[in-house]
Amino acid sequence: MASSTPPGSVTVKHHDRSYKVVGTRPIRHDGADKVTGRAKYGADTRLSAMLYGYILRSPHAHARIKSIDTAAAESYPGVHAVITGKDMPHVGDRIAELGEGSVRLSHLSANCLAHGKALYHGHPIAAVAADSIHIAEEAARLIKVDYEVLPPVMDVLQAMQPEAPVLNDDVFTSELGAPVSESPSNVAEHIHYEVGDPTAGFAQADVVVEREFRTATVHQGYIEPHASTALWHGDGRLTIWTSTQGSFTVRQQVAELLEVPLTWIKVIPTEIGGGFGGKISVYEQPLAALLSKKSGRPVKIIMDRTDVFKSTGPTPASVIRVKLGATKDGKLVAAEAWLAYEAGAYPGSPVNPGCMCIFACYDIPNARVDGFDVCVNKPRTNAYRAPGSTNAAFAVETVLEEVCEKLGLDSMDVRLKNAVKEGSRRVDGYVYPRIGFIECLEAVKASDHYKSKLTGPHQGRGVACGFWFNIGLKSSVTASVNIDGKVSLVEGSTDIGGTRTSIAMQFAEVLGIPVEDVQPIVADTDSVGYTDVTGGSRVTMATGMAAYKTALEIRDLMCERAARIWECDPEGVRYNDDATLTGPAGQSLSFKAVASQIVQTGESITATGNTNMPNSSNAFGVHLVDVDVDPDTGKVTILRYTACQDAGTAIHPAYVEGQMQGGAVQGIGWALNEEYWYDSEGHLRNANFLDYRIPTCYDVPNIDTIIVEVPNPDHPYGVRGVGEVPICPPPAALGAAIHKATGIWMHQLPMSPPRVLHEILKK
Amino acid sequence: MASSTPPGSVTVKHHDRSYKVVGTRPIRHDGADKVTGRAKYGADTRLSAMLYGYILRSPHAHARIKSIDTAAAESYPGVHAVITGKDMPHVGDRIAELGEGSVRLSHLSANCLAHGKALYHGHPIAAVAADSIHIAEEAARLIKVDYEVLPPVMDVLQAMQPEAPVLNDDVFTSELGAPVSESPSNVAEHIHYEVGDPTAGFAQADVVVEREFRTATVHQGYIEPHASTALWHGDGRLTIWTSTQGSFTVRQQVAELLEVPLTWIKVIPTEIGGGFGGKISVYEQPLAALLSKKSGRPVKIIMDRTDVFKSTGPTPASVIRVKLGATKDGKLVAAEAWLAYEAGAYPGSPVNPGCMCIFACYDIPNARVDGFDVCVNKPRTNAYRAPGSTNAAFAVETVLEEVCEKLGLDSMDVRLKNAVKEGSRRVDGYVYPRIGFIECLEAVKASDHYKSKLTGPHQGRGVACGFWFNIGLKSSVTASVNIDGKVSLVEGSTDIGGTRTSIAMQFAEVLGIPVEDVQPIVADTDSVGYTDVTGGSRVTMATGMAAYKTALEIRDLMCERAARIWECDPEGVRYNDDATLTGPAGQSLSFKAVASQIVQTGESITATGNTNMPNSSNAFGVHLVDVDVDPDTGKVTILRYTACQDAGTAIHPAYVEGQMQGGAVQGIGWALNEEYWYDSEGHLRNANFLDYRIPTCYDVPNIDTIIVEVPNPDHPYGVRGVGEVPICPPPAALGAAIHKATGIWMHQLPMSPPRVLHEILKK
Repeated sequence: MASSTPPGSVTVKHHDRSYKVVGTRPIRHDGADKVTGRAKYGADTRLSAMLYGYILRSPHAHARIKSIDTAAAESYPGVHAVITGKDMPHVGDRIAELGEGSVRLSHLSANCLAHGKALYHGHPIAAVAADSIHIAEEAARLIKVDYEVLPPVMDVLQAMQPEAPVLNDDVFTSELGAPVSESPSNVAEHIHYEVGDPTAGFAQADVVVEREFRTATVHQGYIEPHASTALWHGDGRLTIWTSTQGSFTVRQQVAELLEVPLTWIKVIPTEIGGGFGGKISVYEQPLAALLSKKSGRPVKIIMDRTDVFKSTGPTPASVIRVKLGATKDGKLVAAEAWLAYEAGAYPGSPVNPGCMCIFACYDIPNARVDGFDVCVNKPRTNAYRAPGSTNAAFAVETVLEEVCEKLGLDSMDVRLKNAVKEGSRRVDGYVYPRIGFIECLEAVKASDHYKSKLTGPHQGRGVACGFWFNIGLKSSVTASVNIDGKVSLVEGSTDIGGTRTSIAMQFAEVLGIPVEDVQPIVADTDSVGYTDVTGGSRVTMATGMAAYKTALEIRDLMCERAARIWECDPEGVRYNDDATLTGPAGQSLSFKAVASQIVQTGESITATGNTNMPNSSNAFGVHLVDVDVDPDTGKVTILRYTACQDAGTAIHPAYVEGQMQGGAVQGIGWALNEEYWYDSEGHLRNANFLDYRIPTCYDVPNIDTIIVEVPNPDHPYGVRGVGEVPICPPPAALGAAIHKATGIWMHQLPMSPPRVLHEILKK
Repeated sequence: MASSTPPGSVTVKHHDRSYKVVGTRPIRHDGADKVTGRAKYGADTRLSAMLYGYILRSPHAHARIKSIDTAAAESYPGVHAVITGKDMPHVGDRIAELGEGSVRLSHLSANCLAHGKALYHGHPIAAVAADSIHIAEEAARLIKVDYEVLPPVMDVLQAMQPEAPVLNDDVFTSELGAPVSESPSNVAEHIHYEVGDPTAGFAQADVVVEREFRTATVHQGYIEPHASTALWHGDGRLTIWTSTQGSFTVRQQVAELLEVPLTWIKVIPTEIGGGFGGKISVYEQPLAALLSKKSGRPVKIIMDRTDVFKSTGPTPASVIRVKLGATKDGKLVAAEAWLAYEAGAYPGSPVNPGCMCIFACYDIPNARVDGFDVCVNKPRTNAYRAPGSTNAAFAVETVLEEVCEKLGLDSMDVRLKNAVKEGSRRVDGYVYPRIGFIECLEAVKASDHYKSKLTGPHQGRGVACGFWFNIGLKSSVTASVNIDGKVSLVEGSTDIGGTRTSIAMQFAEVLGIPVEDVQPIVADTDSVGYTDVTGGSRVTMATGMAAYKTALEIRDLMCERAARIWECDPEGVRYNDDATLTGPAGQSLSFKAVASQIVQTGESITATGNTNMPNSSNAFGVHLVDVDVDPDTGKVTILRYTACQDAGTAIHPAYVEGQMQGGAVQGIGWALNEEYWYDSEGHLRNANFLDYRIPTCYDVPNIDTIIVEVPNPDHPYGVRGVGEVPICPPPAALGAAIHKATGIWMHQLPMSPPRVLHEILKK
């Protein structure tokens, strides 16, 4: 059973390929379990004699930990183990790759459990395992921590000042990987990209606009908090049940942090209630493991919403300056950007991708980008859907709109004139293969929405674009043909957005069988080949490719089996698109018929496939939004919203639309409402969903979608990653629409009612 | 860490192969979890909102079920579902293969939940799922069953009489698969094998001995009762957690019984606390599934010990007549056997293997065997370690001893004279490949034990032999190389006797890596290729073969990877026995070093291998036992016991010894104490471990072992199955020893004190 194309959904194909399974909208394999509450999430793990862990967190944004006295907690009835930073092994400073980002091991360790200093409000200081969560919490209150409170630095620009309090003694500014500062600094890294001659370029420009932008710290807002259970076995092996984007990534991090041999750890990924980049890095997993080791019992740690806000990785607040120069015909001739991203407590903000993305949509001959990764007393930032790109898009797209306004040109035409295409070169030197950005701009321009008229007095329409990469990396699958003709497909990719189905569909397409006949299974780290994280918009493309390769092998094995049945040379057997096999003498059997004879004709039929794809494809999105701005309150109401994107080929259009809609809604939240509120002492004051306001269904209309298909030349079905780019355009699109409605230019996120009203009143 | 050869353990090698891993005694991979109580067995499954199932069983051995009124039970508070035989789909009469035996689907269904008739005391009649087991049990008492009690038939000979009550209306006697009786009969099958001219053979004999034997119904006595949990998902899929010998076999049976598509069922095998053949057929699994379907909740059913005795499959009681003829020089010239085995309620006793095994040790030119599969009002029998062969060995070996006594010849010499060897032909026509039976006889003859003298007045020494097959069938494994050089090995074979390790050892041997670097995982039916049941002494041989093939493929992939590193032709890379790889220019890297570069050099490295082995190898055992018989009580005390066996190659000698010792102890229990006690109405009166007496450590000395290694020519490491044959010789060996000690001949099992005393007094 499959659903049909919903209203508000359009697909524009730039190819003439046709498929049987690819492009349909089947029910997801894991759907029934999810809607009936049977799916097992992180908190659902229950083991015999299990203990509950509670994490004591720093009440200070910046403090030296002079001493921790855990004696009273340890002797509290029902407590089985207490750990502090001293229980974490002294790991080296090697860089740990996390899939979408990297971090020094020593910092990752200290972020899990503070070593010597607390660097943000909510920083884990100690953890307790007890018979119940209540006992654990009660006991944690008995832990005496002697803090020397230090002044916090909460703003990226302040943190860059020489006189700012320095968070980490071991962080020095580096450029191109080499240290350039003599003393410890909050500025961990300075990134620089340059192409052409920007100074000469600006000299050619008829119009130059330069503006500074600020974006706030925002959280991914996944509905399921982090939850993990660890069991340290008697022989030193370790099993971890966890809600994660990458089971192998968790295995790697825990192995390195706890100095356990890699394959002694088995990570069993549970279902995951959202990640968006925030469930790649480990938090509670090593603590649950250490508590289990110390207590000899399994230990479960579940965060609550406040823990998630305070202590897990949001996306960075940033300050960005963008300067664009254009000739009067609308040709962009020079660009300059300066980006300072908050890393939070430890280096590792996504400023580098921010730098690579900021001018990625436009072919600008002369450009210069400088980026800074800056520590502040906030939680260590983490990936969040197209990490770094949304901040950048807000800045560059807003400046572009102002340039167009000054030139009196239509911004869509200017975008079309400057849009990157095959052969265009990005500021970091990358040359694009076949991409579909122009096709997206044209699709939006041709849309009903674009052609429609606004009707009210305070209404405005905005357009903005966004860019994101498509990571390749490693994926592994194993397939096994059952005698009823159904195929089990073991996958290493944790399924966040329906990838069980999107991978199974590609597998089914090769074999010409219904996707319902493919049974996808997300396996643990012992039971499938190494597979990289579910992130970077990679899974449908790269794990799909592994499934594609494996299906080809299954096809060969089925031909070989048919040859045994017909007693002929396997070379003479043909596998047809309709899942029939024909022999040299005209014999014919269906896939199901051959499968039904597996037992009689020999050994079981299994195959395994692995891919290691380059980061090749690229995703572009163009969003169009109509707003109504209440001049008395500053409240922005979204009237109509269309998201357009080059999906390469939409394997499962409903999931592509879901990604576009979900990303747009998150971008809308980031644009209009979301922000971390810190008080002057660095205390987070809105660490809950009442005070940190994400959009609800009352805040957004249906997001219409236009899927553009310009097939990715590096993938047999032309898949491009689709999960991330739709979060990039909304802030800029809404900013442009607000400008059209009110005349004000918004340079700070969120564009919340008070801030919009402030600008309106100023005007 | 590995253990050393224990005292009392001898190995006699008939080959000059040498191995690095094969033949060592490493600690089992699952050992720590098992000794620390962390391993999850059938009863350990716990799911949210789980219900508990209770099975109402027949109080009668034979009764027509006139009606079942479940209304009161259904309305009892806390009850969520009640099922009876009417809830089981009406399946056809197709034969279901179970791995070690087969059964008609309709009978398997009725055995799970009675259809119309109750055929044994304990036959499941209805099942209840409730919030607690106590509520379920309480509610089950409210089920009103109107029985018409019928006369039971409890003895195989009585059941064969024309006037005997007939259990099944749909059972007719068949010969060679064709019905030969006109009316329903308890005799389901008559088997006949013949070779040479038995009548002429007996005419040549100088001595002919014919005797009749009786063996009792005995149970496998696995420590873990049956336990399963089922969850019927909202979309019709079904997950079953169960303690089983074969997860794929359970999947197949449940699919057929409940008419669910095969791959909609996922069977997750838990650890298993013993099976010995008794955990192949399904019992509670379909009931838990139906209760889950009806209640919409997961349902767990755990049998207690009484349930296990009453309702699961013991091995058949039997009546066997054997006639042997020999010339005065000890040459066996003719043999005749008549075997009647109790099938229990439904056809399917192991009388056929009994017929094939009875003369399998000796090269007798003229032989005739007739076997009968007979229904009686006892639970449907099931496989139990070398099913059918122990009964047969007791009969034939005892008659052989009497023949030798009559001839005044040493029975060991007579055995050596007549022993089967390569080229000998079995009564069913099978011609032996290279086997090691003579080598076993010679090893026992050369042993210290054999050469030692008995010292007491009522002491005796007995020898007996046994034979069993070695099933091949299908196995599948998948391997994945980790960057720390350790390899995950996913196996479809449930691990009862340490096969995780014995399979991993063969994998490690191919690659030259330590077995500790192989991580074996027993996967569910979705996550590994189809693998037949753990039974028939097949796993170390056949799944080991799959691992062997897969390791060869991993070796090739590692060579290919080294070639990438060295930028050379993969053909030029050599994989050496010490797990180093050498390149064409003399470069060298260890397996671990190549593995550590997997990430940098491409895709993950995985491989999968499948085998479908013929039933090729054969197992022979020779046991030697010294006893002391108390003439006042008839109690038999075992003074010394040696078990000898051709293991082909002992992959893990400690496990081979464990199988030999465990089998011998089970055979000793069967020989001396174990039996089902039914009263005149067919009620089982000793359904517990106090009244059904299995041997304890006080009853048996250490079992010394002699492993003979005559490599199996069909396996690369020469493995033969070892798990079953050691149960065959003990009854006959003990019978011979009792004869030597007392002069009496025992023709009935168990040879319990009252029965031995009775024979002594008679004499």
